[in-house]
Amino acid sequence: MTADAMAARPVPAPRSDARFLRAARGLSVDATPVWFMRQAGRALPEYRRVRERATLLEITRDAGLCAEVTLQPVRRLGVDVAILFADITTPLAGLGVAFDIREGVGPVIEHPVRTIDDVRALRPFEPEAAVPALLEAISIIRRESPVPLIGFAGAPFTLACYLVEGGPSRDFGRTKRLMHEDPAIWAALLDRLTEATIGYLRAQVAAGAEAVQVFDSWVGGLSPLDYERRLLPWMRRLFAGIADLGVPTTHFGVGTAGILGLQAYAGGDVIGLDWRIALADGRRIVGDRAVQGNLDPTLLLGPWEAVEEAARWVLDQNDRRPGHVFNLGHGVLPGTDPDDLARLVDLVHNHGASR
Amino acid sequence: MTADAMAARPVPAPRSDARFLRAARGLSVDATPVWFMRQAGRALPEYRRVRERATLLEITRDAGLCAEVTLQPVRRLGVDVAILFADITTPLAGLGVAFDIREGVGPVIEHPVRTIDDVRALRPFEPEAAVPALLEAISIIRRESPVPLIGFAGAPFTLACYLVEGGPSRDFGRTKRLMHEDPAIWAALLDRLTEATIGYLRAQVAAGAEAVQVFDSWVGGLSPLDYERRLLPWMRRLFAGIADLGVPTTHFGVGTAGILGLQAYAGGDVIGLDWRIALADGRRIVGDRAVQGNLDPTLLLGPWEAVEEAARWVLDQNDRRPGHVFNLGHGVLPGTDPDDLARLVDLVHNHGASR
Repeated sequence: MTADAMAARPVPAPRSDARFLRAARGLSVDATPVWFMRQAGRALPEYRRVRERATLLEITRDAGLCAEVTLQPVRRLGVDVAILFADITTPLAGLGVAFDIREGVGPVIEHPVRTIDDVRALRPFEPEAAVPALLEAISIIRRESPVPLIGFAGAPFTLACYLVEGGPSRDFGRTKRLMHEDPAIWAALLDRLTEATIGYLRAQVAAGAEAVQVFDSWVGGLSPLDYERRLLPWMRRLFAGIADLGVPTTHFGVGTAGILGLQAYAGGDVIGLDWRIALADGRRIVGDRAVQGNLDPTLLLGPWEAVEEAARWVLDQNDRRPGHVFNLGHGVLPGTDPDDLARLVDLVHNHGASR
Repeated sequence: MTADAMAARPVPAPRSDARFLRAARGLSVDATPVWFMRQAGRALPEYRRVRERATLLEITRDAGLCAEVTLQPVRRLGVDVAILFADITTPLAGLGVAFDIREGVGPVIEHPVRTIDDVRALRPFEPEAAVPALLEAISIIRRESPVPLIGFAGAPFTLACYLVEGGPSRDFGRTKRLMHEDPAIWAALLDRLTEATIGYLRAQVAAGAEAVQVFDSWVGGLSPLDYERRLLPWMRRLFAGIADLGVPTTHFGVGTAGILGLQAYAGGDVIGLDWRIALADGRRIVGDRAVQGNLDPTLLLGPWEAVEEAARWVLDQNDRRPGHVFNLGHGVLPGTDPDDLARLVDLVHNHGASR
């Protein structure tokens, strides 16, 4: 897609009065905004029907399908945002990395990145060449969605884990070893991934995304020492590199209760909390930032009463203070009943606003 | 083994001047005590030689082999404690649960526990019938070990995960569902497991263990709400049930940065910290308790310089305050070089004592 083609498709002016966008900036809202990580996905029958004819990769390479799948949960669940349907690994192809997403395994990289030559072989990320369908999907979604659209990207550490491990890993041993054994290779790799992530997010916002979320899914495996000395400078560079865009940024990881302060220092208007820390404790640690979370997604596989109890516990801890976006502590699990998700949206909206 | 037989094997009087025992009680020490979870195991060639002729289960059912394997790291590494060689699942056979430990998979339970009848079918745990070899190993170790012996048990939640899931699980979905769907079955199961754990630990101390550690390895998957409402009462009962023994108790879990305060409230003279929280932050949360930890075990797969840097970072945070037992944040990984472990012991001992 050329810049001309982009210009030819007018994108509506960004909203600023939407609940999510106000809450992300710490402003008062009429009701707590709510959305779910992986809200577009296997929990929805209409998504499963799409998957009968297209793989995950194919969906992310077809603007119409991608927009359709992104909008499904907005229509069905009444959530306050749409989040672009893509995988954390989606931009890797644009770096020249050959990978496949295997059912039940996840992304598998053909040639893991472990030497300085591997790093040098990574191509500069050019969004319009690398992810044209996603950018086109963004304009479609912006025209059709009644709620703001969040763009997203994996964070450099999480991308590095995929690239270095080459497949699933329990403890990211190879990645951590590279970090300590070859600081120069590590720095070169993070330089590339940080630049690519900045470019990817900037392109999404240019195409119409009204907010972005950075998923550092695996960062919870790092000690605070490693985070501070081997990752923080790049995370600060990443958030500085998108600060001028004027859209709210959310910074999310899993298992991060011990490094939330470092993450908040790295950047993000909103800090994501997984379910393993009380929301009030998380808010205390991240200071003036808004928070997003943090219901245990596993609860949605059980009785509604437990979902309701935990949702009210999360909401009550916020004590009507502005700056809370309700979400799960991690993605929707495949066995979740979408009716329970819709019911949860209603519960959150009706629980009372922070004014 | 009968009570008479036990009495026939005199056990040396417990030490109280050992570094570990003093540090666990928050007393000053001449040097920070250090040991490693899974210090007896695949990292040691002498252990691997034993495993050529005996399975893990066979070792725990042979007092001589069990004592030998327990003492191996004491001789080679110079650690400040011996920890009884056993698996978290070892006592399950005494409850009448048939299970096997499969290479690369872990414990697999033949008939998972999911109904009230399954719970009722669990036999009362009688230590001298269930684990005679372990109790005999304890007396052998006490006679031969120059350092204190820690007994241990899995905590009720972690045991429940094994019993309910029946095999490996990523998110303990079945266990959490049982907890919420059938509170009565959950309570009955935790009642049984708490009683069994108390009996198991009391028998180990009666046989000569000079301290105990409760491993709640999987508890980091719970939200603070679930911990407080569905687990805390049993954990308090567990620690109350061993309080009169007069031995220091350590309470350990993984991924617990968000629930350390609840764990400390549940009990334990020493609270274990994994590597994903700064030691100083953990100490602040657990208040007056001693802490144990918390080097990232993955570091030992990389260069020594990274181990040294992180070990000094851990030790310096303690700022010469008493009440710190140095350990890894989780167990020794199989690829670890035992020479690095021995070097780490020396580093900790020479780093300076808290007086």
